[in-house]
Amino acid sequence: MSQEDLISFNRVTIVGPGLLGASIAMSLKKKGIAREIWVWLRNEQKKELCEQSDWCDRALIDLQDAVRNSDLVILCTPVELILNQLTQVSGWLKPGCIVTDVGSLKKGICQRADEVFRDKQIYFVGSHPMAGSEKKGMKYASSSMLEKKNCMVTPTEQTKLKYLNKITRMWEMLDMKVTHKTPDLHDEIVGWISHLPHLIASVLINTVGEKDSTWMDLSGNGLKDTTRIASGNPTMWKEILMGNRENLNISIDHLIENLKDIKIALASEDSGKINKLLDSAKIKRDQLNDN
Amino acid sequence: MSQEDLISFNRVTIVGPGLLGASIAMSLKKKGIAREIWVWLRNEQKKELCEQSDWCDRALIDLQDAVRNSDLVILCTPVELILNQLTQVSGWLKPGCIVTDVGSLKKGICQRADEVFRDKQIYFVGSHPMAGSEKKGMKYASSSMLEKKNCMVTPTEQTKLKYLNKITRMWEMLDMKVTHKTPDLHDEIVGWISHLPHLIASVLINTVGEKDSTWMDLSGNGLKDTTRIASGNPTMWKEILMGNRENLNISIDHLIENLKDIKIALASEDSGKINKLLDSAKIKRDQLNDN
Repeated sequence: MSQEDLISFNRVTIVGPGLLGASIAMSLKKKGIAREIWVWLRNEQKKELCEQSDWCDRALIDLQDAVRNSDLVILCTPVELILNQLTQVSGWLKPGCIVTDVGSLKKGICQRADEVFRDKQIYFVGSHPMAGSEKKGMKYASSSMLEKKNCMVTPTEQTKLKYLNKITRMWEMLDMKVTHKTPDLHDEIVGWISHLPHLIASVLINTVGEKDSTWMDLSGNGLKDTTRIASGNPTMWKEILMGNRENLNISIDHLIENLKDIKIALASEDSGKINKLLDSAKIKRDQLNDN
Repeated sequence: MSQEDLISFNRVTIVGPGLLGASIAMSLKKKGIAREIWVWLRNEQKKELCEQSDWCDRALIDLQDAVRNSDLVILCTPVELILNQLTQVSGWLKPGCIVTDVGSLKKGICQRADEVFRDKQIYFVGSHPMAGSEKKGMKYASSSMLEKKNCMVTPTEQTKLKYLNKITRMWEMLDMKVTHKTPDLHDEIVGWISHLPHLIASVLINTVGEKDSTWMDLSGNGLKDTTRIASGNPTMWKEILMGNRENLNISIDHLIENLKDIKIALASEDSGKINKLLDSAKIKRDQLNDN
């Protein structure tokens, strides 16, 4: 399949229409990639809300009904639930169905998918669209949320090139910047660029708050920005941090070592070293803006 | 003086019309607090640009000429330069002149001011309007930059209540939230709520960049927000971090201890502890939004 081909699916099922799931549904509809979108959700009360929206054709509480005639299933639930749902849906999907997910950790999910879909005509390709927010729920969803954001797609040895290309193309059609990484390398990378920052933001706001909680009221935008992601969903992030603890262990150590170096430089009034730290940080951070 | 009184000055001199200085000048003009605003600047080329703007009546390269007939002098240069300029201007100001500044560290500045203005009819009140940005220069200035932001005003034993009230009222008229702290306490507080976050943002982006600089290109908004302030002016921040190294030493230690605790919790799969960290961080961070 050429990278330039347009792709489309007759029926796409979004499992878990939260912030990311609903944003994906909106974008798939808007770009004409999905003819119809079905949604699985847990919460009976949100069923009607979903069905009233123009990005959802049908909302179901029964997972089997929601996925069994789908051409593409996108699992948008938290990592632990994705693992269970992979096992569940493996017996229900029709031959030829493609499955992907949006989980923040890929090693366990891709292993599970390889196991449960082996020798079946069901094609799994793991994805991690990095377009989250500290906000939670479909009410914050928008079709622009994915635009210009990174998406790591994580093939394994079992992945068929045809479906890797198809899923890659789908994210590209949603204006995402796609890169391919193995699940192991993905988890290592996000341990540094996503999970370490989340942990630091959380530890920082706690450290400042512990000292004197009234002081935080006096802060400027610096503390706010630096800790914004600490407002993210604690349950989801607990799963992520625990699930990636081996990679995090290494990245935390590096950070602690660098902090100790700075402490020594400050204590010895080594302003050259502090200059170097700040210059190098500014160069690296300014580059991030260009992405 | 009643807190409700409107105050105004015949001539205000802004020493250093950078991002903050120019924003203050704009706001003072807009609110009618300054009848005329004179500006001192180093850069001959920016003189004309200043004088063409509606917030500047006169721009001068000579500091003595810029301040000698002023009713209020606001020093908006970096901390080290403020220290020198306090000594310089002390011989030139007219009796009755009020002096304030916007320096990020107050202990050294307030000590110097108390020395050089002692037994003179010149009234210093230290200020720290916390309305910075990682951007630099008057082109980013705006009269709204100060609105709803915190401003710490730092009286010493030598400060006269009348002038403390006047400076307090001036920042309040610019829509800032003013609190009074001693210079020592101010420096301790900002060591935690401002300088520690800046240092962490810088160390974090360096740590991630050291590991593999291509990985940063794959990041989402989390890393961007958490490290945004690392784009700040390195020379200015070197002065600040070095100047507040004793307070920073303590806050860095606390942060390292908290990071080590988290490492142990992750290694021992103590998900209750990770939960507690994230829950507590979310509660604290959500409160910051209400400010």
